[in-house]
Amino acid sequence: MIQTPYLLFLGDAPDALAAKVAQGIRDWRPENAVGQFRMDGCKADMKLPDMTLAEAKAAGAKTLVIGVANRGGVISQAWKKVLVTALEEGFDLASGLHNLLRDEPDLAAVAKATGRTLHDVRVPSVKYPIADGVKRRGKRVLAVGTDCSVGKMYTGLALDRDMRAAGMKSTFRATGQTGILITGDGIPLDAVVADFMAGSVEWLTPDNDDDHWDVIEGQGSLFHVSFSGVTMALIHGGQPDALILSHEPSRAHMRGLPGYTLPTLEALRDMALPLAQVANPACQVIGISINTQAMDEDEARTYLAEVEARMGLPATDPFRFSTQKLVEALAAI
Amino acid sequence: MIQTPYLLFLGDAPDALAAKVAQGIRDWRPENAVGQFRMDGCKADMKLPDMTLAEAKAAGAKTLVIGVANRGGVISQAWKKVLVTALEEGFDLASGLHNLLRDEPDLAAVAKATGRTLHDVRVPSVKYPIADGVKRRGKRVLAVGTDCSVGKMYTGLALDRDMRAAGMKSTFRATGQTGILITGDGIPLDAVVADFMAGSVEWLTPDNDDDHWDVIEGQGSLFHVSFSGVTMALIHGGQPDALILSHEPSRAHMRGLPGYTLPTLEALRDMALPLAQVANPACQVIGISINTQAMDEDEARTYLAEVEARMGLPATDPFRFSTQKLVEALAAI
Repeated sequence: MIQTPYLLFLGDAPDALAAKVAQGIRDWRPENAVGQFRMDGCKADMKLPDMTLAEAKAAGAKTLVIGVANRGGVISQAWKKVLVTALEEGFDLASGLHNLLRDEPDLAAVAKATGRTLHDVRVPSVKYPIADGVKRRGKRVLAVGTDCSVGKMYTGLALDRDMRAAGMKSTFRATGQTGILITGDGIPLDAVVADFMAGSVEWLTPDNDDDHWDVIEGQGSLFHVSFSGVTMALIHGGQPDALILSHEPSRAHMRGLPGYTLPTLEALRDMALPLAQVANPACQVIGISINTQAMDEDEARTYLAEVEARMGLPATDPFRFSTQKLVEALAAI
Repeated sequence: MIQTPYLLFLGDAPDALAAKVAQGIRDWRPENAVGQFRMDGCKADMKLPDMTLAEAKAAGAKTLVIGVANRGGVISQAWKKVLVTALEEGFDLASGLHNLLRDEPDLAAVAKATGRTLHDVRVPSVKYPIADGVKRRGKRVLAVGTDCSVGKMYTGLALDRDMRAAGMKSTFRATGQTGILITGDGIPLDAVVADFMAGSVEWLTPDNDDDHWDVIEGQGSLFHVSFSGVTMALIHGGQPDALILSHEPSRAHMRGLPGYTLPTLEALRDMALPLAQVANPACQVIGISINTQAMDEDEARTYLAEVEARMGLPATDPFRFSTQKLVEALAAI
């Protein structure tokens, strides 16, 4: 597996969302990140010490993790100089980008010459089966979003942490590069060939103890036309017993799609639940997770209370506030 | 492109549905098939002359097309002897299987030694974009099914033929290996990497004349848990103006999924239309195509009349009867 600790490479991230890989590691495995490396114009900040490669090496860092994702997953020429130098100075590289480290001739050549390892966690390392839809033992929960990047992974990571703390059996099942870099395991679902998407999710969440929960990392949105097929495969491959609706209330439009407005939580519920019940007729919506980062605390609590009253379901911001209501709802299934 | 005419290889097809690639070529481009090659135990029959490789060669065949698909797309050892001999006797090979001809060392070696070509039409030959959801000019129609293999491709091919005959502008847009082998062009959607599925459909159906119809080949089903993500990408990438509901009434369960019953046409309509309206708010369900092959003619006509009355939409079997009602409904949009 990937050697820790990491130096987090933020590159020239145009905004904080672009650095969500680094932020995920920072938030959920802070002990694995000794510092951050930022280039001119970088708009992201992990609140970690800014380090040169030499400083990070001296601090014990083993791997430079590319913590920033561009649309389309390209490795820019501006990054190359840093990455080549990092290899020369003894770092491994780890990346979840579509554009693979191993496919860059200069990086591949330097890695070979220096004996360093290039980890492309986005590349499927398993020959996944076609989904067979057979009911599996154990329980599964999946967060589905009104949009991409609304907090589905954080919801899952927080639930997994808190379910374990409550003495429940739980495993976080990563389905994206950030989750894989955080947990060291999972499926790079958006890089899986179409026919095998649902099968890869079945493979990820196999038979388990009857009282064990797989907390499946959500991806995309049924309402996001670029990535809805991936969401669909999670809903049918994961055959969840429980859905959590995830939303970020400050968005003016769907991420990356200026012409598309966000659906309501009601519309999301009415779309996702019948689809989930195709694979698992017992599936139910058990709660709502709201990303309240754009609100102050009073606003957030007022908003959550309003959503709870309107939807008749427990609602929380699992990162900012307690997940207790959601954990209790899952424990009751 | 692939050289015609073809000899259709049916192998040891376990049933007629397994040979749907060959059947598609037989039905829509019969002039391209001089005969069929069947092995012991073959349960499919294209009603073409059974030929040895030598007989087909003498009849002018240029390419042996693998007209049979196994679950998982495997090239069996039982087929290998025929394929190797075909290359040695001067045939090119064409296949839409997941398991690529080029990845079989013996086939690759013999093809190289004999100077023949291996056509793997399932392999994407284009670097597709991520879908941007921008509204495109021209009109698009998509068939969505209650199940896989219910007649969506045939519906599209028949509509395309009859719309052209009626003086309308129409292009059949193939999204699977059979369609590509029939028309010589298209996207192998189920082999596209997840993140680029919807983008590949956008790429396939670009801006066009306002009165031009893209007839997009449907795939899978929103209710088929193995492949629903592919269907989802077609609905959002294709941004159809018109949906046609496709159904085969004799199925006891979803294809390949013994535990799953088929949805009703009403359930399909209520699931597919709201999803399609995310990408194209003007989308409407304009008619129904029924695969009546398991019924005699009286039964079929009675069934279609019942469906029309129940659903309030024109219904036909586009392969057996006229597509006129569907063409008229499209012309009215």
